[in-house]
Formats: sequence, C-alpha cells, structure tokens
Amino acid sequence: MTKIAVLGAGSWGTALSIVLADNGHDVRLWTHRQEQADTINQKHKNEKYLDATIPEQVKAFYRLDKAIEDVSAVLIVVPAKAIRDVSMELDKVLKDPAVIIHATKGIEPESLRRVSQLIGEEMTGYDYEDVVVLSGPSHAEEVGKRQPTTVTVSSINSQNAAFAQDLFINESFRVYTSNDMVGIELGGALKNIIALGAGISDGLGYGDNAKAALITRGLAEITRLGASLGASPLTFLGLPGVGDLIVTCTSPHSRNWRAGNLLGKGQKLDEVLEQMGMVVEGVRTTKAAYQFAKEQQIEMPITEGLYQVLFNDEKPKDIVEQLMNRNKRDEMDDIASFIRTSLPE
Amino acid sequence: MTKIAVLGAGSWGTALSIVLADNGHDVRLWTHRQEQADTINQKHKNEKYLDATIPEQVKAFYRLDKAIEDVSAVLIVVPAKAIRDVSMELDKVLKDPAVIIHATKGIEPESLRRVSQLIGEEMTGYDYEDVVVLSGPSHAEEVGKRQPTTVTVSSINSQNAAFAQDLFINESFRVYTSNDMVGIELGGALKNIIALGAGISDGLGYGDNAKAALITRGLAEITRLGASLGASPLTFLGLPGVGDLIVTCTSPHSRNWRAGNLLGKGQKLDEVLEQMGMVVEGVRTTKAAYQFAKEQQIEMPITEGLYQVLFNDEKPKDIVEQLMNRNKRDEMDDIASFIRTSLPE
Repeated sequence: MTKIAVLGAGSWGTALSIVLADNGHDVRLWTHRQEQADTINQKHKNEKYLDATIPEQVKAFYRLDKAIEDVSAVLIVVPAKAIRDVSMELDKVLKDPAVIIHATKGIEPESLRRVSQLIGEEMTGYDYEDVVVLSGPSHAEEVGKRQPTTVTVSSINSQNAAFAQDLFINESFRVYTSNDMVGIELGGALKNIIALGAGISDGLGYGDNAKAALITRGLAEITRLGASLGASPLTFLGLPGVGDLIVTCTSPHSRNWRAGNLLGKGQKLDEVLEQMGMVVEGVRTTKAAYQFAKEQQIEMPITEGLYQVLFNDEKPKDIVEQLMNRNKRDEMDDIASFIRTSLPE
Repeated sequence: MTKIAVLGAGSWGTALSIVLADNGHDVRLWTHRQEQADTINQKHKNEKYLDATIPEQVKAFYRLDKAIEDVSAVLIVVPAKAIRDVSMELDKVLKDPAVIIHATKGIEPESLRRVSQLIGEEMTGYDYEDVVVLSGPSHAEEVGKRQPTTVTVSSINSQNAAFAQDLFINESFRVYTSNDMVGIELGGALKNIIALGAGISDGLGYGDNAKAALITRGLAEITRLGASLGASPLTFLGLPGVGDLIVTCTSPHSRNWRAGNLLGKGQKLDEVLEQMGMVVEGVRTTKAAYQFAKEQQIEMPITEGLYQVLFNDEKPKDIVEQLMNRNKRDEMDDIASFIRTSLPE
C-alpha cells in the first residue's frame, strides 16, 4: 500500500483516484474547493465531473498541506494552464521526497514547454527528468466504470516510471512503459489540435471518410512537429499517438471535439468558449503549433487551416475545400521522409 | 472522356461509377444479374446496395462482352473470392489492351496472394505489375453523397497509377499515389481482422478506450505481418492503414465490424454468417493471417485470440482478459523493433 496524493478533482483526477483505490492504495484527493471536498467525503460522489461511486479509501482534502502529508507519490492532474501555480504551491508544502507523476495533456503555448518541464522549473530539488508522465487513450468515464483501458507511463528516470507502472496497473487498467517521455507528453498535447479539426468536420456534416483522412493526415503533421521537438516518431504510432487520436476524435466525450463541432456548425470561437465554460486545450495548442511551424518551416496544412478558422474568421468549409484541392501528390513521399529523417539511430 | 467498364455493381462499384460519371467518363457498369442491370438503366437506382441516384451516363450491362466493348480501362470491384473467376471471364472477352484497376479488399486465404497477383495469374498478357490498386478509408455511402473522401492508388507500373489517379480525382474525391502496391493491398485486406475485433469489443459492451487500444495494437500486428510479406511499414501509417482502420473500426457501416459485434454479443460464427447473408472478408483473412503468423513466428496476439473465438469456440470475454493481462512491457520496444527492422534502406 502506498500513500499518494492526487492533485485535481476533475474527471480524470477522480477516475485515476478510483484506479489507485482499487489497487489498495491510500488516496488523498485534493481540490481547492472545500465544498467539493466535503461532498466527496460525505457522499462518495463527484457528480459534476464523473458518474461513479468513489471508494471509501479515497479521502478528499481542500488544504494542500494536509493532502500531501507523508505521501510517497503525488499525481498532478490539473489543466495545463494551472501547472505552474499548483507546482509552486506544492513546492512550498512538500518537505519529504516523493515521486511526481502527472497526467495533464497540454503544453505552455508561448514556450512550447512540456508539463514535466514546467513542474521541474517550479519545484526546488525536482528535475523534470524525474517526473513521470501518464498518458493514453482514456476517457475518464470509462475508467470510472472499470472498462478495459491502456495507458503509457514514461520518465527519463526509469525507476520512477516502473514505480508508477506498479501503482496503477490492474486487470482493467493496463500500463505500458516507454522511454520517450518527450513523445508521450507532446502526443497527448498535440492530438487536441486534430480533435478540434475532427469536430469541425463532423459539425460541417461530413462523414467518416473525411474524418479518417483528417486524422491520418493530422497524425503525420503532429508527428513531424513532435520529431522537430525531440520526440521519437514511433511514439506517435502507439497508444499515446494513434490510440489517443482515435479516442479523442471519434467521441463526443472529448471537449476539444465538442468545441470543433460547434465551430463547424457556424459558431464563432468566442461563443463556443463561452458556451463550453471550460478549458479547450486545443485552441491554445493550435496557436502555439502554428507559430512554431511557421518559424521552423514545418509543413502543417491542417493546423494552419485550423488557425485561420480560430483566429482569422475563415470559414471552415473553405478550409476543407482548400485541403481537398492541394496538388495531387504521392502520399508516401511525405510520410516516408519525415519518418526516415527522424528515426533514432 | 474515357470509356471504362466497372465490374461489380455492389455498393463500392456503384459509388465508384458515380465518381467516374461525375468526372465526365463513359461508365459501363457490369453485373451478372440481368434484373439488376435493367433496374439501374430504367430507374437509375441500385437500392439494395447504395442509397444514391446514379447519373445517366452510367449504363448497366449484364453481358460482360458488351460491357467491355472499346474500353480503355476496367475497374474490378467484386468480392475477393470471385476475383479468379471474374478475371478468367474477362480474359476470354477482352481483346484490346486496357488498364486494369481493382478496388477489392481481400487476399486469397490459402496462398496469401494479393488481388493483383490473382488477376495477373488469370489473365493472359497481363502482368500483376501493371494492375493498379485503389484503396483507402471510404464508405461507399459517403462517396455516393459526394462527401470528402481520400484514397490511394498504386501500381508497379507508375504510368498506370498516374492514369488511374487522373480518372478518379475530383473536388470531393482526393486521390494520392503510392509506390508500395504490396502495402496498399495488404493494408486493405488485413484491416478487416482488426475490424472484427473492434466489433467484438463493442459487442461485449466495452468502450472507446478498449477499442482504441485494440486498433492501435492491432495496427502494430498487421504492420508486422505486412512487412514480412514485403510491404513497407510506412504504408500502414497512411490512408490505407491507419485511415482505413479508423473508418472500418468505428462505423456500423462496416460489415466486418457488424459481424464482430454479433460475435461479441454471444452469437456463434455460423449464426452470424447466416444472419449477415453476405461475405465477411475478415473471417477468411483471420484464418490466413493466423496460420501464416504461426509458421513464420510473427507475434500476433489479437489475431490469435480472434482465431480462437472464430474457430475454437473460445469466449470473447476470456480472450480480452488474456490480452489485458499479458506481461507488462515496454510498448515502444515492440513498435520500434518492427519498424526499424523492416524500413527500406
């Protein structure tokens, strides 16, 4: 039994707490809202975020210093834009060493820094290399129902990765390891760009053929970008790449897909964000990827089209038509060249 | 304007005839059933197979010798098991040279021969190297509605591939070329194995997480098998691989998915095949892949599990549990090794 704090009581934090509790661990779930913590402790429910009964050995806390008392591991599951703040707060109260794991999908738009880097920068005595990332094709709702799910953990520190694998693995939650931390983090973040695009395609009333093309070509784009930031392209073929793309792009559970869907139906970005009332990670990620691709001259036609829709008021339908009518070409030239040039020796 | 015969008036043959007619070609659609040909010519409908109006410049024929009169190209779109017979019949009546294109997804189970090889073997004066394959993520229903669709054509004879690209390409039907004919043909055939598995997962009541894992791991398996038969693994990352897998595994349009779904709900293979009343290509393909993988010692745990369900009465649920509980391992080891060892120089 391990004592572990889970920071962030959204849907994913709650679902992962259930996995850890199922494995017999002592789970301390932190939220900064006292009312939410009280409801979880009294009713064992977190209804706004997840339709599941929370096991009794999950205790909720609204004070961070209490939540992390005597823990051997801390799992951070907050939105990407809160990572620096939460890491700073954690740094103030965490005295004894603990393994830091994160399950946050996103990057810092201005710097393109990954979540593990942000944690490493804000916490004294913690290098990003020791942080573990957990990512994969995983709707929280299904994990809460113990439906079969696979994820990947990775860290430069392979001991920490193995520790995290042991914490989470069970009959219905299968955990792989990978040595490509950069790829795992970028895959989880960049796939949200394509999820927005898939939502737009569906919102325009196009079918599965169009969406499959978009996902496939989108995968090539984000792999190219990822490789230029140090990821292995192979990672994008695995669970944190193809797998996560499929889950995010084909399910209305995904908020990035939902936002795209509203855009495809003709709403403006402002209206969509207001209506959703929650973070749509893919919007920030699209901007960041677009700017970086411009600077580095990386070909990303889907991301560029999406940027024009989000920030320059272009019509989604016009963008799709442009994408369909680019010069005819050899598909494999494209894929082969980026895989070959970026394969590790 | 090109005069072209389309052999096979099922849903895909009908949809491709519409694409060709939209491009101004003179299309001659062949079916061996006179009644079906008459209905198409009189009502411009082929309702059992496709919900679409067929343009007037598509003429239906039930006599093959009439259908192929003066054509410069023949598109073969019949079920894989009819390929040898239809090629033999065609060989008897086709006197002037024509470019042979096929859009049939399947392989010959006993020999693992590809469709282009079967055509090459049955037709005098036609080498398989001159045959063109057309494949990709494409539900016929959507193509019939002119919804955006992308496919890939390939032939060892690149002139023929370019000719086919020009025949089909238009605003809503985007055609790429590839020089990996083997990969394009195998991708289209092998993906049906995984579609069966995805249907089983859904039939068992599992969610998107499980299905995404199955598709991702399944992609790795069929890529390994394809590479051992001479395909480039890169092809499996493109439209005829990932793209086609997504379309086939996430849509109830797919008959392989539908067959798997019934199996997952507890029906036996015999009942399922009887109830469907049509060819389920994935069943034959699973048997062929399983036997070849055994001989060649290729690791294909999903295909093997599926084989046990189809032919040895194993329960689908037990197979899923076995797959979820294999030894924990490094995901990337697996993917990296097969990609590296099989990349072309």
